[in-house]
Amino acid sequence: MNKEKSLGTVETHYFTFAEPPHELILQSGQKIGPVTLAYEAYGALNKEKSNAILVLHALSGDAHAAGRHQQTGDLGWWDSMIGPGKALDTQKYFILCSNVLGGCKGSTGPAAINPKTAKPYALSFPIISIADMVKAQKALIDHLGIKKLLCVIGGSMGGMEVLQWVASYPKSIQSAIPIATCLKHSPQQIAFSEVGRQAVMADPAWDEGNYYGKAKPEKGLAVARMIGHITYMSDKSMEEKFSRKLKTKDHRFKFTADFEVEGYLHYRGDNFVKRFDANSYLYITKAMDYFDLSGGKFLHKGENESLRFLVIAFKSDWLYPLYQSQEIVRQLKLSGLDATYCEINSSYGHDAFLLEIEEQTRLVKHFLNKSFYGYDVVRGYEI
Amino acid sequence: MNKEKSLGTVETHYFTFAEPPHELILQSGQKIGPVTLAYEAYGALNKEKSNAILVLHALSGDAHAAGRHQQTGDLGWWDSMIGPGKALDTQKYFILCSNVLGGCKGSTGPAAINPKTAKPYALSFPIISIADMVKAQKALIDHLGIKKLLCVIGGSMGGMEVLQWVASYPKSIQSAIPIATCLKHSPQQIAFSEVGRQAVMADPAWDEGNYYGKAKPEKGLAVARMIGHITYMSDKSMEEKFSRKLKTKDHRFKFTADFEVEGYLHYRGDNFVKRFDANSYLYITKAMDYFDLSGGKFLHKGENESLRFLVIAFKSDWLYPLYQSQEIVRQLKLSGLDATYCEINSSYGHDAFLLEIEEQTRLVKHFLNKSFYGYDVVRGYEI
Repeated sequence: MNKEKSLGTVETHYFTFAEPPHELILQSGQKIGPVTLAYEAYGALNKEKSNAILVLHALSGDAHAAGRHQQTGDLGWWDSMIGPGKALDTQKYFILCSNVLGGCKGSTGPAAINPKTAKPYALSFPIISIADMVKAQKALIDHLGIKKLLCVIGGSMGGMEVLQWVASYPKSIQSAIPIATCLKHSPQQIAFSEVGRQAVMADPAWDEGNYYGKAKPEKGLAVARMIGHITYMSDKSMEEKFSRKLKTKDHRFKFTADFEVEGYLHYRGDNFVKRFDANSYLYITKAMDYFDLSGGKFLHKGENESLRFLVIAFKSDWLYPLYQSQEIVRQLKLSGLDATYCEINSSYGHDAFLLEIEEQTRLVKHFLNKSFYGYDVVRGYEI
Repeated sequence: MNKEKSLGTVETHYFTFAEPPHELILQSGQKIGPVTLAYEAYGALNKEKSNAILVLHALSGDAHAAGRHQQTGDLGWWDSMIGPGKALDTQKYFILCSNVLGGCKGSTGPAAINPKTAKPYALSFPIISIADMVKAQKALIDHLGIKKLLCVIGGSMGGMEVLQWVASYPKSIQSAIPIATCLKHSPQQIAFSEVGRQAVMADPAWDEGNYYGKAKPEKGLAVARMIGHITYMSDKSMEEKFSRKLKTKDHRFKFTADFEVEGYLHYRGDNFVKRFDANSYLYITKAMDYFDLSGGKFLHKGENESLRFLVIAFKSDWLYPLYQSQEIVRQLKLSGLDATYCEINSSYGHDAFLLEIEEQTRLVKHFLNKSFYGYDVVRGYEI
């Protein structure tokens, strides 16, 4: 095995389910259909269909988790973790990743056409929850004939989906890896979400969500993303990356972005509006805010006993602080479940789940070996 | 002495200086005049003019620091610290507070009329620095005939002004109390400032600053203020104040502000736009970002020896973290100066300098007693 190996070119698939019982009944009681999920698959499903791992993306992620995309040539958002010999080893496992319900990367969301009106849903799209996203993912897994996932894994909102899988379908998964996540958003997390939403909705181009085919609320969404990026980094990582460096030497006493950190935020904001739908931003952040599996609500007695957990958190993550991961572990341990907790000593803040590859790879490889083979295949471990 | 005693009704005064040498030459080399400073004064200046204390306000503060305002009836922003028997005891001391240059509460700022054009300055107002604000304050102190201030005290941006007084006029002050502040903004602090500015400038009503007499960029400024308020509180204080409480019981699955923390932020944002000028917000935050007295730049050998310092920080303040106050103390101690450092164990975050009154009162009272009498008048201490 060579860990440098890449997956090569990959393509996005689409799964649409329309007819009852495959129409999606949402947690709110509303129904939605047809629903399309964009997804990608890497590696091969074995004969027993026992090697499937579902990767769950964060707020702004998509189905393109690894490899080079056939159309865009872009590398997947977790390419460093997925591929031959990598943490999620495509020579052993069948890796799936789908864009969430409510998203804007090929899955049905507010930008999709409502078949009843032949217009984009916009704000007529129903409010969705993390449980609804997971319910749609379950339909995809059923469609692929997979009875039990070897593992569900994801960071940030992806970690909430992992916990929701445990809550909704404990018999359909064998193990779970929630990373840099929480059982519920704190008021501070809700506050950051809400300020982002307000930034979008303050943009007159947003027009109550009816901007499709017109100028988009780019300025508002860029501000929302800039706020996000501050929370994804740490005070320390910003100091290391930018310090007080100026963009140019002559920039003192001008009323523009003169510090490098400002330029970086502008770049991130401007980039985001090109690839993300503002209404999806509103719906998905709202789903994160509503998410609440605190107080052991995600564990059902008699249905989790064989489940194994690896909980990963990052020391400098102040958006999803350590105490939130520790609370997940506490709930698991109170129920007597098999849970390993690991804090990675990173300065990257919340972004660490995308950047701290080496330690995550070690942790995940060992954990999956045990889940798959029933023991840790030490010789297969080449990192 | 009765600590419950109030100052009663107070009024705002205005000091205007126009002719050279009282025209203000700014750090950038530009000149501005006439300059008006709004200020308030409490207590009486003694015959020796040795009991004057200058209070310096934070980003959104003003000259009205204590008492009930004659016109509005509002209590001053630091009323709990200033008054008969309080930390800044108006029975002993003569307390001054002026609105900063660039502000919008009676002092000359971008909303003021430019005498050369008879229109508001707007973005033709020169970029100002913390040093420029302090230079204007010095003109006020000179005007009042005060040769040496007993103390300069302030939190947040007010603390930067305190340090700038030390840098600019070490011979004109006897002691200094910088609270919850820093020697320079970190990239994270700059980033939060910049996102706030971007929120203002993204509002089309901002119109390159030319909104005077028209609709104001209220939505943008409200978003900026909401971001600010998150950073002024702590994760813990938000949890204690709001938890995940909903505004009403029926609010699940609606696309509005349903959590109490959201309602609070909206209230704070909406309130702010009624009382603050968006361009002042841009100029003042920029001045804070430019401020840099790191590396001992604020201390001049041979001019600070008799200066005494009390540096106060709050444990849960993540916007101006402890390490920044510790760095101030380190610079003072490296220069062999008389500095006391105190961390107050508060959960209020950065807001603590406005809320943690009891401990701040004890610290400040003892410190001022020693500065004023040369020793601590223990019997005068009644808190």
